Amino acid sequence: VIVTLTTDFGEESPYVAAMKGILLSVNPQARIVDLSHQIPPQDVRHAAFFLAGAMPYFPCEAIHVIVVDPGVGTKRAILYVEVAGHRLLAPDNGCWTLLPGSASPTRVIRLTEDRYWRHPVSATFHGRDIFAPAAGHLSLGVPPHLLGLETMEWVRLGIPAPRLEPNYLAGEVIFIDHFGNLITNIPGKALDQLRGPRRFTVGDTVITRQVHSYGEAEPGTVVALVSSEGMVEIAVNQGSAAKQLQARIGALVTVAS
Amino acid sequence: VIVTLTTDFGEESPYVAAMKGILLSVNPQARIVDLSHQIPPQDVRHAAFFLAGAMPYFPCEAIHVIVVDPGVGTKRAILYVEVAGHRLLAPDNGCWTLLPGSASPTRVIRLTEDRYWRHPVSATFHGRDIFAPAAGHLSLGVPPHLLGLETMEWVRLGIPAPRLEPNYLAGEVIFIDHFGNLITNIPGKALDQLRGPRRFTVGDTVITRQVHSYGEAEPGTVVALVSSEGMVEIAVNQGSAAKQLQARIGALVTVAS
Amino acid sequence: VIVTLTTDFGEESPYVAAMKGILLSVNPQARIVDLSHQIPPQDVRHAAFFLAGAMPYFPCEAIHVIVVDPGVGTKRAILYVEVAGHRLLAPDNGCWTLLPGSASPTRVIRLTEDRYWRHPVSATFHGRDIFAPAAGHLSLGVPPHLLGLETMEWVRLGIPAPRLEPNYLAGEVIFIDHFGNLITNIPGKALDQLRGPRRFTVGDTVITRQVHSYGEAEPGTVVALVSSEGMVEIAVNQGSAAKQLQARIGALVTVAS
Repeated sequence: VIVTLTTDFGEESPYVAAMKGILLSVNPQARIVDLSHQIPPQDVRHAAFFLAGAMPYFPCEAIHVIVVDPGVGTKRAILYVEVAGHRLLAPDNGCWTLLPGSASPTRVIRLTEDRYWRHPVSATFHGRDIFAPAAGHLSLGVPPHLLGLETMEWVRLGIPAPRLEPNYLAGEVIFIDHFGNLITNIPGKALDQLRGPRRFTVGDTVITRQVHSYGEAEPGTVVALVSSEGMVEIAVNQGSAAKQLQARIGALVTVAS
Repeated sequence: VIVTLTTDFGEESPYVAAMKGILLSVNPQARIVDLSHQIPPQDVRHAAFFLAGAMPYFPCEAIHVIVVDPGVGTKRAILYVEVAGHRLLAPDNGCWTLLPGSASPTRVIRLTEDRYWRHPVSATFHGRDIFAPAAGHLSLGVPPHLLGLETMEWVRLGIPAPRLEPNYLAGEVIFIDHFGNLITNIPGKALDQLRGPRRFTVGDTVITRQVHSYGEAEPGTVVALVSSEGMVEIAVNQGSAAKQLQARIGALVTVAS
Repeated sequence: VIVTLTTDFGEESPYVAAMKGILLSVNPQARIVDLSHQIPPQDVRHAAFFLAGAMPYFPCEAIHVIVVDPGVGTKRAILYVEVAGHRLLAPDNGCWTLLPGSASPTRVIRLTEDRYWRHPVSATFHGRDIFAPAAGHLSLGVPPHLLGLETMEWVRLGIPAPRLEPNYLAGEVIFIDHFGNLITNIPGKALDQLRGPRRFTVGDTVITRQVHSYGEAEPGTVVALVSSEGMVEIAVNQGSAAKQLQARIGALVTVAS
């Protein structure tokens, strides 16, 4: 069984390795797939966008373990979730609630059965002591309902709603990728409702060039396009829009015609 | 068979990939598990703490390959070690000697049998030419005694001893993790011998707040706690104690009551 | 079947994870091996040196997927290549043309058969939509000729030729590794034609110390040696030659006697 790992642990510390050790101790046949250990520390929102762009592409048999967990050791719950056919273990901080289908998950269980945990359970490393062994047992076929109690309550994250008017769209930067591309909350389809030439803005920068792919523009040019996830994106061919436009998460983006 | 890799090679160079290629050429069924390729360059001590926090959690069948090797190509030996049921290959620089049980390893063999190596053996890349093929052969079931000669001599690292008095503990920062948490050489259990309210110091900073988990404190607060490995730790909830206190490896940490 | 991944995607974005998901959806038995996701963004030449130092060590059964692809979405082709017994999928930007044997590959196919792709195919993420599913189908045993049409045209990269005179060698830095070692285009064997003591230069720095391995010199000393790939290399024991000499790709390196 495939078990994927997504954490903010980095690689210079032994935390990811400890989780892999426990997982393989519980189920030596588990097939571990690293998704990322470079989620920015404690950045639950980043983790949520990351998962939304990754998990849906996996086969449903996989078990996804997400440990971006600023609330470790407090009363925040740990959840087992089935959503749109996918299965995951995550802290109850909303990191899974931007996934397609997350408005109506098939099943959400609050982990309570500590016989599937490692003991003693530390207060600061539930990745090793709860997530990894629970994932190991799941991958061995332990039925999820044995892990704890079904619940109807959990933390939800939202994406800020863009303003979509007939000739004017306004949204914000919600994710910045490794290349410095700025992904917004404006759906690419909303561009269809604009007539005439489009004028994008990010802060003081005006962008009039819309392309289908980065390489259509000269290197260094700021362009707008529709991202691989279908959202309006601002990019610089062979450069970083984030650096060039000094743009951050939350920066206002508008489109007018 | 699981073969884990721990190196200081980073990922932008082809060195890790070359090791994986050789390993899979010798044993196409080897199951490679990356522990870290972000050990700081040539930092044997960091590697030693990393391993102590990772290896004990693995099942004993695994073979651990560690290549943090500033002495590559010199006369330093390469060792096969069995310690507390775990098996590893490492340069003889002490990187495995902070592991539990390392004071009395079951077996230490100095690699000499070059028929298990790749030829020609370069002077600068034993990871590819010795470690990877030797690990591949081990994972195929070659008995360790065929790799070389048993030895009773090897390099040992030590952890500086803390000073533990009835009402005063003094130690130092021995590891800084990805989050900037400062792990010290003061055992958490030693805190029990202090009566009355505890007062921690790191450099000029006085810390009076002790917690069980980061999230108990407000974001940005400096706190003391017992780490997941049982040591006194100084942390900042959702921040970096290393940055906020400008603390480095070796910084003095005291606890008084 | 082993499928290796080499990209410039980093890990904080979901792109690598999405590729792994699609690959495992097409072939749940694929054994994914990460080579690197830290190729500098859009740096095709870096990718080419990386592959030349990694791919030859793998068993021939592996399928190598390389996505360093500044031309994604433009008319650049995607190639399936068989070279010296190895198999790879890569954008047609020359990234595979520094591999041994690349002057006469056994077979080069231009991917055209979109039934092996994911649909709809985005204009900006062919890693997910073309490379990953095509690799998945190859790993399931789909014969390569079904993927597209054989071609005799592709982009080639070259390594700048060094000047090799009886008592004078001149070349340049062509790769800088994770440790800051400077790898040049001067073959180590060419050193044999110099008589008398050798004098290396990088910019203004003169190096007279040649070693076999880093550890022969005192920490901080600049030395010349022959790299693990057989090229003249400038290094600093336990330091970074790139930083210490402020050297970049293309920096002139000479050897005289």
